[in-house]
Amino acid sequence: MVSVTRQMLEAYPKSINLDRAKLAAVIDTINSCAQACTACADACLSEEAVAELAKCARTDLDCADVCTTTARVLSRHTGYDANLTRSILEACVTACRACGDECARHAAMHEHCRICAEVCRECEQVCRDLLATIS
Amino acid sequence: MVSVTRQMLEAYPKSINLDRAKLAAVIDTINSCAQACTACADACLSEEAVAELAKCARTDLDCADVCTTTARVLSRHTGYDANLTRSILEACVTACRACGDECARHAAMHEHCRICAEVCRECEQVCRDLLATIS
Amino acid sequence: MVSVTRQMLEAYPKSINLDRAKLAAVIDTINSCAQACTACADACLSEEAVAELAKCARTDLDCADVCTTTARVLSRHTGYDANLTRSILEACVTACRACGDECARHAAMHEHCRICAEVCRECEQVCRDLLATIS
Amino acid sequence: MVSVTRQMLEAYPKSINLDRAKLAAVIDTINSCAQACTACADACLSEEAVAELAKCARTDLDCADVCTTTARVLSRHTGYDANLTRSILEACVTACRACGDECARHAAMHEHCRICAEVCRECEQVCRDLLATIS
Repeated sequence: MVSVTRQMLEAYPKSINLDRAKLAAVIDTINSCAQACTACADACLSEEAVAELAKCARTDLDCADVCTTTARVLSRHTGYDANLTRSILEACVTACRACGDECARHAAMHEHCRICAEVCRECEQVCRDLLATIS
Repeated sequence: MVSVTRQMLEAYPKSINLDRAKLAAVIDTINSCAQACTACADACLSEEAVAELAKCARTDLDCADVCTTTARVLSRHTGYDANLTRSILEACVTACRACGDECARHAAMHEHCRICAEVCRECEQVCRDLLATIS
Repeated sequence: MVSVTRQMLEAYPKSINLDRAKLAAVIDTINSCAQACTACADACLSEEAVAELAKCARTDLDCADVCTTTARVLSRHTGYDANLTRSILEACVTACRACGDECARHAAMHEHCRICAEVCRECEQVCRDLLATIS
Repeated sequence: MVSVTRQMLEAYPKSINLDRAKLAAVIDTINSCAQACTACADACLSEEAVAELAKCARTDLDCADVCTTTARVLSRHTGYDANLTRSILEACVTACRACGDECARHAAMHEHCRICAEVCRECEQVCRDLLATIS
């Protein structure tokens, strides 16, 4: 099934400096990561061991915010500015790495951290790959 | 394929007052709507007829923000508050209806408006359905 | 000192259906509330008694998101839609009341909850006042 | 008058790696910039010359999103991560410079662009100053 993201990119009326299918996949991965991080932060709050998960919740919240903003920037093509795209992608890589690392520390104990770590790793990778095609 | 949203809801360690599979589908629809609206606003800006699409772009931006916030609220279950869930879902219904109506006016001329209108209609409906199970 | 919000509203080139000075004050209060809630959620995470503050942190996060979106909607005037303004203000009232109530329960123990409760009460009130001028 | 941001930072129960008064001033400037950019994007949409302001509106939207996320990250201190702080500040500098440049091009014609350009310049500068104390 073609995602809404892909359909909307195909309907963009002017040229886009990146491959539309690949870009759509990146945006979808980033949005999934934002969703996982928002949910993981809340799941951490509901655990009895929440005190040990405080840093994890914080990193989740940062990563959710950075991913949401990155997906929005990547969804805009009017007056494209490679500098900003690169800069927010670098922040996204940093946020996903930090969150992936922190969630991985709790993956054996908490399934939500295990899933979130995995999603962060994938998101970090697709952002790195996209960065490589821009720089 | 099970969405990340669904996987994270299944991994939530405490009880959730709503059906997890249905809730995941609603959140995914709302996030797709946020994405469509962000992309539609930008596509409107790139059209030569942007002056006729100014209201459409504005409604897209509102709808994207309301959908993003609604998906976040629905993704949190710690200390669940039915009043807030209901209230933000009502705002989401209102935003999606307004945006669906406005995009529909331009659907024949602009493919991005046609797709976005359709996604807004679906999002409005799933939010109404979820509201009916809460009220 | 005239706030940036007020300066920008005065510079808006078309008519606005609300008093610009009052509207600017409301937006500034809502943005302050978003800021207080974001900070309170993080302060809750750093408390040793975080387990007792889990619901408070969650309510803070919801309130921060709803306030941020409400301030954005109120900052847009192109193609004004009273229904959406009313609907998001109602959600904002609900979020601020819930967050004010929850923070008030911890105000005696935690200064950040005391301040945040006060800011939420004020935000709830200014949103109610604005709603009264729209309905 | 002490801002809510400053009051909340003073109430944070653990240590913060940065000067609290200076940090509060930076966060307040970034939030003002987010507000100015959101309002400027909407004002651009309402201008008759909106076609010439399409890139400006887009840059405003990016800058608003990046500033909102940056203010949130800077408002969290639990499990502080200097890498992420630095990375999002760099993205904020890039977004403010791009938006300040673009708004400055229209400053003579549109008062909202003139104010927004000024706010972006100040925001870029305070973010650079904060970066210098972290690196």
